[in-house]
Amino acid sequence: MTLIAEPKSMHFAEPLPLRSGASVRAYDLAYETYGTLNADRSNAVLVCHALNASHHVAGVYPGQEKSEGWWDTMIGPGKPVDTDRFFVIGVNNLGSCFGSTGPMHVNPDTGRVYGADFPVVTVEDWVNAQARLLDALGIQRLAAVMGGSLGGMQALSWTLQYPDRVGHAAVIASAPNLTAENIAFNEVARRAIVTDPDFHGGHFYEHGVVPKRGLRIARMVGHITYLSDDVMNEKFGRHLREGLDIRYTTQDIEFQIESYLRYQGDKFSEYFDANTYLLITRALDYFDPALAHSGNLAKALAAATARFLLVSFTTDWRFSPARSREIVKALLDNRRRCTYAEIDAPHGHDAFLLEDPRYLSLVRAWFDGIHTELAA
Amino acid sequence: MTLIAEPKSMHFAEPLPLRSGASVRAYDLAYETYGTLNADRSNAVLVCHALNASHHVAGVYPGQEKSEGWWDTMIGPGKPVDTDRFFVIGVNNLGSCFGSTGPMHVNPDTGRVYGADFPVVTVEDWVNAQARLLDALGIQRLAAVMGGSLGGMQALSWTLQYPDRVGHAAVIASAPNLTAENIAFNEVARRAIVTDPDFHGGHFYEHGVVPKRGLRIARMVGHITYLSDDVMNEKFGRHLREGLDIRYTTQDIEFQIESYLRYQGDKFSEYFDANTYLLITRALDYFDPALAHSGNLAKALAAATARFLLVSFTTDWRFSPARSREIVKALLDNRRRCTYAEIDAPHGHDAFLLEDPRYLSLVRAWFDGIHTELAA
Repeated sequence: MTLIAEPKSMHFAEPLPLRSGASVRAYDLAYETYGTLNADRSNAVLVCHALNASHHVAGVYPGQEKSEGWWDTMIGPGKPVDTDRFFVIGVNNLGSCFGSTGPMHVNPDTGRVYGADFPVVTVEDWVNAQARLLDALGIQRLAAVMGGSLGGMQALSWTLQYPDRVGHAAVIASAPNLTAENIAFNEVARRAIVTDPDFHGGHFYEHGVVPKRGLRIARMVGHITYLSDDVMNEKFGRHLREGLDIRYTTQDIEFQIESYLRYQGDKFSEYFDANTYLLITRALDYFDPALAHSGNLAKALAAATARFLLVSFTTDWRFSPARSREIVKALLDNRRRCTYAEIDAPHGHDAFLLEDPRYLSLVRAWFDGIHTELAA
Repeated sequence: MTLIAEPKSMHFAEPLPLRSGASVRAYDLAYETYGTLNADRSNAVLVCHALNASHHVAGVYPGQEKSEGWWDTMIGPGKPVDTDRFFVIGVNNLGSCFGSTGPMHVNPDTGRVYGADFPVVTVEDWVNAQARLLDALGIQRLAAVMGGSLGGMQALSWTLQYPDRVGHAAVIASAPNLTAENIAFNEVARRAIVTDPDFHGGHFYEHGVVPKRGLRIARMVGHITYLSDDVMNEKFGRHLREGLDIRYTTQDIEFQIESYLRYQGDKFSEYFDANTYLLITRALDYFDPALAHSGNLAKALAAATARFLLVSFTTDWRFSPARSREIVKALLDNRRRCTYAEIDAPHGHDAFLLEDPRYLSLVRAWFDGIHTELAA
């Protein structure tokens, strides 16, 4: 049975104070829900998105067959996160570009489009905004919060900011903070965007242009880090573009991998907002729950009371299994309940979005356990 | 004793035919030599350079204390490649931007600066040009050819193109070809340059501008791949710029790694030629001696008769030890003499340029052996 998705929006009139000291005076959050909230409001699952995803987590829009949500393999009727059992919520984060208030909207304080003046938002700020959405939906406590990559960071942060409101947390292909190399790749992407002459200091909307050159480069860099060396070699190797001999050219496409990356860059530059890219990569850079505890992650995670599922993928070099194990160790140091799986998958970081039977079975079993608990 | 270097230039009036089918009608090669050629002209060592280096391999220029050559730790009086024993030659490759004919020079066929019209040059073309330089210097046979990274590819290619002219070959931190991921990073760098509005299709010289934005991005991407994750974490970690608290900014520098990368990018954009960057990364992409042998590297290396030294570095993820081992295996399949060392160094790809005592001792011992052979 096809799950039909319906985008919704909620307006928040009360200002949201941010970590930076700034605040957002009024804002909207785009969200979707799937399944039915049970009578005691105990079966809600919040799904947090990563860099370029949205509230459209599962299902399709009416009449648009190819509009599957970004985690449609994971979430839906009879799927690992079964919407016949759980009430699943997807929410587009503040500052993103898929319906929630972001840099492309008008700043009510100035009457001008925010652009680069949209305040810097952090993982913690997003979690606070998500908590307000749950308040509005009448949900006091989540059966589970889950996310991959940056979404996993939000799930982890939920367990620290609102320990009483989270029963379980699934933190997938994630990390307790970014390494210097992770930050470095983000910085390259940001510089490509900011130094694009069409960026206009972040106020390109007024000029009727989009810094597409920068967005393309940002996406190409990102894509390389999402894939494993193995899968790139298997998929593209050193193959030339089909049917062509070596042409000896520096500016035209010669290898298939070049064609693939350019295509990904072009596509991305058509729909993603440049200021959002800056904001979201910065939220990644800043996330570091151990910072307030002198770098001691075990101390930082002492606040968490949820039961955890941690999943990593062997060929993920963006957020390697070692980074997940840091979280597992810190949880075990606190004697928290934690399931950890390292999936031997060839796809790199992207594996968390793909259909891997072992991975999906594992998540299914974990959610089956939550369902059994709820029924008890 | 300080080695004093003196840049020289040699003019070649005979056209050089290139792999692409094009040719360079007349050209100059910048080069330097250190030490003295012995009476039977048997002690010459050719040093091939990588992406952004030059013929200035060792020593300093008179009155410029800080002008050390790029491999000054390796080459000089009493150093591993001892210029009291060997006659060492460094040559700037065709298409580079440090004195040899390149895109910034006038095309004699058109009277216009080459720019993007400079013909695509390959590793094989460079080796042919180097062979002509040796002819002009009266050197029939090299005691050794050596290089790191792209320089190692040239050393390897020497043993295949001119097996009778090479006694020994040192191939350091190199690979038998680029992986899809290697090509992908090159392509990001090239796109950043080519899509910089100041590139003007490669004819920016006429416009009096330089595509610095693109060059900066290219260098930042490159730098990330030269360093290991370990050394980046140790050197920069998540440290903020000195003395500053988190400022919550998307466009300004927040972390030290950002400051470092921007500095490297800025510096590079001041001196490196954009068209040269395209040419040299393409030479890397195209190098693949196994291609003409249906991908069989052992068959490709059957032509080589030199004695080999292969060195790799454990944390080099650009050209990992596994890539050097492919060459070692192919040589052993042909029963060639080959010494292989995998140095446990934290510095990533850059390690081949750094002062690591084990690495330098190893190269010293190998060259001591060559010296003994020559004296026998």
